Amino acid sequence: MCRWAAYSGEPIYLEHIVSSQTHSLIEQSHHATEAKTSTNGDGFGIAWYGDRPEPGLFRDILPAWSDCNLKSLARQIRSGLFLAHVRAATGGGTRRDNCHPFVHGRWSFMHNGQVSGFERLRRPLEALLCDRLYSARVGTTDSELLFLLALHFGLDRDPVAAIETMLKHVETEADRLGFETVIRFTAAFSDGARLYAVRYASDRKAPTLYSAPLGRGHCLVSEPLNDDRDAWVAIPDGSVVLIEGHEIAVQPFGGWAIERRVPELQLVAK
Amino acid sequence: MCRWAAYSGEPIYLEHIVSSQTHSLIEQSHHATEAKTSTNGDGFGIAWYGDRPEPGLFRDILPAWSDCNLKSLARQIRSGLFLAHVRAATGGGTRRDNCHPFVHGRWSFMHNGQVSGFERLRRPLEALLCDRLYSARVGTTDSELLFLLALHFGLDRDPVAAIETMLKHVETEADRLGFETVIRFTAAFSDGARLYAVRYASDRKAPTLYSAPLGRGHCLVSEPLNDDRDAWVAIPDGSVVLIEGHEIAVQPFGGWAIERRVPELQLVAK
Amino acid sequence: MCRWAAYSGEPIYLEHIVSSQTHSLIEQSHHATEAKTSTNGDGFGIAWYGDRPEPGLFRDILPAWSDCNLKSLARQIRSGLFLAHVRAATGGGTRRDNCHPFVHGRWSFMHNGQVSGFERLRRPLEALLCDRLYSARVGTTDSELLFLLALHFGLDRDPVAAIETMLKHVETEADRLGFETVIRFTAAFSDGARLYAVRYASDRKAPTLYSAPLGRGHCLVSEPLNDDRDAWVAIPDGSVVLIEGHEIAVQPFGGWAIERRVPELQLVAK
Amino acid sequence: MCRWAAYSGEPIYLEHIVSSQTHSLIEQSHHATEAKTSTNGDGFGIAWYGDRPEPGLFRDILPAWSDCNLKSLARQIRSGLFLAHVRAATGGGTRRDNCHPFVHGRWSFMHNGQVSGFERLRRPLEALLCDRLYSARVGTTDSELLFLLALHFGLDRDPVAAIETMLKHVETEADRLGFETVIRFTAAFSDGARLYAVRYASDRKAPTLYSAPLGRGHCLVSEPLNDDRDAWVAIPDGSVVLIEGHEIAVQPFGGWAIERRVPELQLVAK
Repeated sequence: MCRWAAYSGEPIYLEHIVSSQTHSLIEQSHHATEAKTSTNGDGFGIAWYGDRPEPGLFRDILPAWSDCNLKSLARQIRSGLFLAHVRAATGGGTRRDNCHPFVHGRWSFMHNGQVSGFERLRRPLEALLCDRLYSARVGTTDSELLFLLALHFGLDRDPVAAIETMLKHVETEADRLGFETVIRFTAAFSDGARLYAVRYASDRKAPTLYSAPLGRGHCLVSEPLNDDRDAWVAIPDGSVVLIEGHEIAVQPFGGWAIERRVPELQLVAK
Repeated sequence: MCRWAAYSGEPIYLEHIVSSQTHSLIEQSHHATEAKTSTNGDGFGIAWYGDRPEPGLFRDILPAWSDCNLKSLARQIRSGLFLAHVRAATGGGTRRDNCHPFVHGRWSFMHNGQVSGFERLRRPLEALLCDRLYSARVGTTDSELLFLLALHFGLDRDPVAAIETMLKHVETEADRLGFETVIRFTAAFSDGARLYAVRYASDRKAPTLYSAPLGRGHCLVSEPLNDDRDAWVAIPDGSVVLIEGHEIAVQPFGGWAIERRVPELQLVAK
Repeated sequence: MCRWAAYSGEPIYLEHIVSSQTHSLIEQSHHATEAKTSTNGDGFGIAWYGDRPEPGLFRDILPAWSDCNLKSLARQIRSGLFLAHVRAATGGGTRRDNCHPFVHGRWSFMHNGQVSGFERLRRPLEALLCDRLYSARVGTTDSELLFLLALHFGLDRDPVAAIETMLKHVETEADRLGFETVIRFTAAFSDGARLYAVRYASDRKAPTLYSAPLGRGHCLVSEPLNDDRDAWVAIPDGSVVLIEGHEIAVQPFGGWAIERRVPELQLVAK
Repeated sequence: MCRWAAYSGEPIYLEHIVSSQTHSLIEQSHHATEAKTSTNGDGFGIAWYGDRPEPGLFRDILPAWSDCNLKSLARQIRSGLFLAHVRAATGGGTRRDNCHPFVHGRWSFMHNGQVSGFERLRRPLEALLCDRLYSARVGTTDSELLFLLALHFGLDRDPVAAIETMLKHVETEADRLGFETVIRFTAAFSDGARLYAVRYASDRKAPTLYSAPLGRGHCLVSEPLNDDRDAWVAIPDGSVVLIEGHEIAVQPFGGWAIERRVPELQLVAK
């Protein structure tokens, strides 16, 4: 389980999310309160959009709480759209290539969650990628692979549908191999224009996701950045959030999973 | 607050302390149970004596739990006398020079504790060092400086007296500057022949120290390496432990501090 | 182009190869003389056999010349069979997983050379691996993949034949994709009992390989470790070297390549 | 010997100096042409002024040529005043604290050169610092100490005079210890408003310094960033350069040294 935070709105210094709040992301790297593991010390990363079409990317393997570069960059860099992540590794060594966010062209992506049985799914899922995206695979995490698969399934054309198709393919691939994978997936991603977040789990235990206004913009986080509990809205499991300019919209996501769960629900009902 | 473990006896693989027990040092780097902070993720180090007069030294800045080099070395290296440490920084950046153990000639040293007001004491204490030891100062921690001061005060001639003199000098220096420093000091050190440990605090809140037999030797630790509670003897505050060959001895340490505390004790008695 | 050195014989300290000679491997990391690039600053690694069936492995991403851990370990560790490598990256980022030697079970492997067109060959070659070896692929270098392919083709049963089959498969795969790959391959590998080295190139420009006695053993290197030129024997292109105990044998390797080259040779002869 | 480059003028992307030119600083980290050592692989750093009074600081210990964070930051960050440095260590371990630029408050400083006999001078020079600056000393290089001494001698009030006083004190301190130190000092420093550079050596062998217009600004470098030799003006030994807005001025520096050299010059003249 990892912790992340993302922002879209009028440009602000990254430190507003990364380091200066009571439960800033750096603070969460040491003492997360809503995560399965309170320590998220296996590296960190930030991706931010500035004047270039593609985002800037800064990732490193030290715990976020002890990296002086991160503090200085967060204090200097202002952006109207950025993603920030602190990692608690569930698989994949501690190295920069395995740190979130992942970036490909103008897209950035970060993730909190896991795919059970990933070690069996890795190969058949990598086999789905086209050659160009296969070459772009440099790490060993499930998260990087989910991102590349989303790109494969059309992130550029229809982002939400691409994520949906990608998740379905993972579930189908597990079915084909004879087991039911549990996917827990709370992710944020952006093309530099819009910020998206999805909260989904095949077992209805999706990692938390909250939203709050921040200055003239919106903030999406794994857990609140401060104790002003009134400000933070819990995004329900099975949702997609879209932020563009000052507009924020929350829509249902993952209808197919409810269908999948029907037999189980009936069983429970009896 | 850090966590450490040391061993003296028949040669064993370092992994017996570092990685293979229920509460091994690597486990403690993530989930220490008797420390003020449960995470000790600011680097680690091992110093071990082999065929050379001086110890081997391996230190790095990643959390111990994620360093594959540490796991491989602990599995390969056998030693009859070694020190191992995982760090939770209280001061001094996360860099190799600030990781314990510290080594000078044939001496190694590691420490758990702190010196209150150290930022004021640093300069006058560094001024006490002879030129040779001043040159050897490469980090910024209180622990490295306490080690160099102990060398200055005769660690080579009379180790226990040198540690005592060093601690007294720190207290005296604070007195001279007009404040009372609180020293908490649970340290292990060795010249390659004997293993020493001191548990001392000027406020009687010294970090814990335990001893247990391990194979054909003895083990000294910040907190027990397993749940066999019967095996672990708590070493009392105000003690020095000496291990040589199969012999272990525990003696009182820090009598001067009791004197310093007399007024307070009388007050309590009334 | 990288630099490497390997030893088999009576146990010696690793520093005899790594740090204490005029042109030690650490020296070569800064000033290689027979390599295309004089700087080999993209990480380093050592694999050594001790009491365990599998080798110890220590790799890191700093230049070898500035890593104090490497110096201390080379001074402390004694082994009768070890491999050491300094890297000049031709592809694959600077990270531990991309540093040589690579280790799998009791096997270790390191390599100097390259495979032209590797970016096109990577995917079809990875597809050849069985599931178990596919899972073991954690880096992005050609070298790690060649090692895993050699394991796939029977390194455990017949090491020299496995390397031969592996190299042939790489060439065949390129043929199938419609281009002729140039393979330059000077590698050392071991199962802990024997030390092997192969010098091979599909274009007869194989990276150099030398052998010399060292103490009561033999040393194989990319370039001589000292100026005693009489001691160093250049191993011809198209050779395999086998060292076991005090015995060293050199045999022809890569006969198939000569066949492949026949048209070219004829052309030359005219 | 290190390599550095600095810029003052209309804001430009850092990559114009760091990575995109023929002999960019990253290229120089691998293949410097006018330095004593062609490899500058012992870390790097950038300090840039943006909206904050104090500069941003990003330093790391990998060779500049292999650090992907540096490339991304140089591509994203625009600044009207920045310093960039690649290090070839002459003393002081490879760690972030020893990488240039050094920053204190709104001041930044970087250096190419050395102070002979520094190991003897370190302690008496550190003793000159006031307590506040002594506490700010966290590394072990001569360069960081020269910077702190310059601050001590009034960098804030009269920057050029402070550098002069600092250099004189180093020479005087060596005299007092009974030896003549050779200082070679080509440094750039800034308070965020002006960019300064000094080229000085007590033996008239100061490291090179060049100036050239770049866009709507000026660039100061250890060696030219491209082959347009006409554009680059060699700044003479014994100079100070001041850049503010579009103005650049070069003035004599280090008159006292010429005096010191008189006996030697006379000797030569006879």
